[in-house]
Amino acid sequence: MLYLGEQHIRESISLDEVMDTIEKSFQVYESGDFQMPDRMHVEREEGTILYMPSFTKDVFGTKIISTFPENIKKGVPTVQATMVLNKASTGEPIAIFDGAALTAYRTGAVGGVGVRYTTRENCESVGLIGTGVQGFHQLLFACTARKIKNIYIFDRSKERLISFKEKLEKRIKNVKVNIVDKVEELVLNSEIIITATPAESPVLPDNEEMLKGKHIIAIGSYKLKMRELPKALYTLLDDVYIDTKFAAEESGDIIVPVREKWIKEDQIKIFGELLGAKKPINEKGGTSLYKSVGMGLFDLMVAEAIYNKAIKLQKGQKIQD
Amino acid sequence: MLYLGEQHIRESISLDEVMDTIEKSFQVYESGDFQMPDRMHVEREEGTILYMPSFTKDVFGTKIISTFPENIKKGVPTVQATMVLNKASTGEPIAIFDGAALTAYRTGAVGGVGVRYTTRENCESVGLIGTGVQGFHQLLFACTARKIKNIYIFDRSKERLISFKEKLEKRIKNVKVNIVDKVEELVLNSEIIITATPAESPVLPDNEEMLKGKHIIAIGSYKLKMRELPKALYTLLDDVYIDTKFAAEESGDIIVPVREKWIKEDQIKIFGELLGAKKPINEKGGTSLYKSVGMGLFDLMVAEAIYNKAIKLQKGQKIQD
Repeated sequence: MLYLGEQHIRESISLDEVMDTIEKSFQVYESGDFQMPDRMHVEREEGTILYMPSFTKDVFGTKIISTFPENIKKGVPTVQATMVLNKASTGEPIAIFDGAALTAYRTGAVGGVGVRYTTRENCESVGLIGTGVQGFHQLLFACTARKIKNIYIFDRSKERLISFKEKLEKRIKNVKVNIVDKVEELVLNSEIIITATPAESPVLPDNEEMLKGKHIIAIGSYKLKMRELPKALYTLLDDVYIDTKFAAEESGDIIVPVREKWIKEDQIKIFGELLGAKKPINEKGGTSLYKSVGMGLFDLMVAEAIYNKAIKLQKGQKIQD
Repeated sequence: MLYLGEQHIRESISLDEVMDTIEKSFQVYESGDFQMPDRMHVEREEGTILYMPSFTKDVFGTKIISTFPENIKKGVPTVQATMVLNKASTGEPIAIFDGAALTAYRTGAVGGVGVRYTTRENCESVGLIGTGVQGFHQLLFACTARKIKNIYIFDRSKERLISFKEKLEKRIKNVKVNIVDKVEELVLNSEIIITATPAESPVLPDNEEMLKGKHIIAIGSYKLKMRELPKALYTLLDDVYIDTKFAAEESGDIIVPVREKWIKEDQIKIFGELLGAKKPINEKGGTSLYKSVGMGLFDLMVAEAIYNKAIKLQKGQKIQD
């Protein structure tokens, strides 16, 4: 059995390979050749624990993920996660993952695949609102999918911005990282805008003129009461691309606009339809929205791909049985 | 984070300490100071995968356990399991266990605690029907709870008996291991009789005279259609001790006798009531039955105890994060 932490994952697989794996996951998702039982929730005083099992013909896996908001006060990351990967034929466990690192990689790559297919190929600027672990990985993958020259970052916490910029500059080369004071400045300068916050009201200006022609990648909201996007955005859109049908069932950024009739239901398209297209949508300058909430199948297939590469490259920590 | 495999578990904790932990678990179970959500089942072509989460005020844990019957043909153990142990306050994972080894220890200890409280103190002989991993550990703990001089073993597979005897003799010292050809021979010679089979019809003779005065520890049946015990046994019993209320809801060895009126419902007692008693029941020679099906809380509390001892004794494999 192998243990695969953040460093092992990074040594084993390239960002492009993770995005290719996500594309493959979308194909498996479309084919229906998988099993993904309902997530199991446990509510505790400290927060929520989520069990996410999923199965393909080759492997199965379970992500155990807890979100305890009070951890911040203790200097401990809010999200803690472990993923166990098993052989589908015998049930044997073959790898244990740092589930937080795995989640960051797969969520970043799901966003990155959105960038691949819903943003103009010549985009050179990306803005990020929400400078947490997820936001960091969104930028990593966005900068792999497009030749980005300028990154703009915004967060309500100024202290976080400075350390975030330093971390980014260490990891992404040949890109200028710009801290902005106002969201409006970020929107004006960014062709691609990524929102990665737990916000319960819009973090972008409710202004059609400002949002016109922008490519939005929204990953923050995964509950009804969570919303990152303003009404003005929806009036600019032809279609809304969601990663899975769960986005339309769970996210306030889809449920509310449908309920309020800012968009019609038939404007909501499953992203998998775009795969294999030779050109991204909106090459001529339209506004786009890609909304992702993720699913266990992404974790499973990314975990499998990392495991296979780690075996091949002899990475990871061997666990003695 | 620590990895704790079979060898690490054995080095970290004594069999008596595991049994003491099970006694503590019964107290927590009685107090209600825990959370144990319904197990989640996933049915696959190859077999069943079971998710067993449980929570106390200090820790939570999840056992992922698969039972794939066809594994035998591939030379792979049927039961595969992994346990993840987390801090309750922050959700941080603190240890990963070989779940099969952990299950064997906790199940052995649950049986062993039954031996402590439902068998005469001067018992010197124990018989085992069903020579699998569970049976092996039942004997380890029975021989710790009582000063056993003779072990009698029976299995339908003769080959298994020989290797099982060798394995036992390596692990348990100063005890004679006797292979018997017939169950009747085992019953005649054994004061304590442990059944650890997946049988769907009784494995003991349906004969009151033979069973009178025997102490039965039954751990095989955990489903309605599984049954190890004959009608004759029940007519000899004053009370039936079950480890948890789940035994009366899940095991054919309790459900069928109640339905067929071989015992009355008010004869079924929760084992926890006996804890702290100075003398075992049946010191004067009565027949007894202790029926165990187990629960996630046992796994959790045994895992916690092993983890604490492993930290203290610096055992286990350190996982680099």
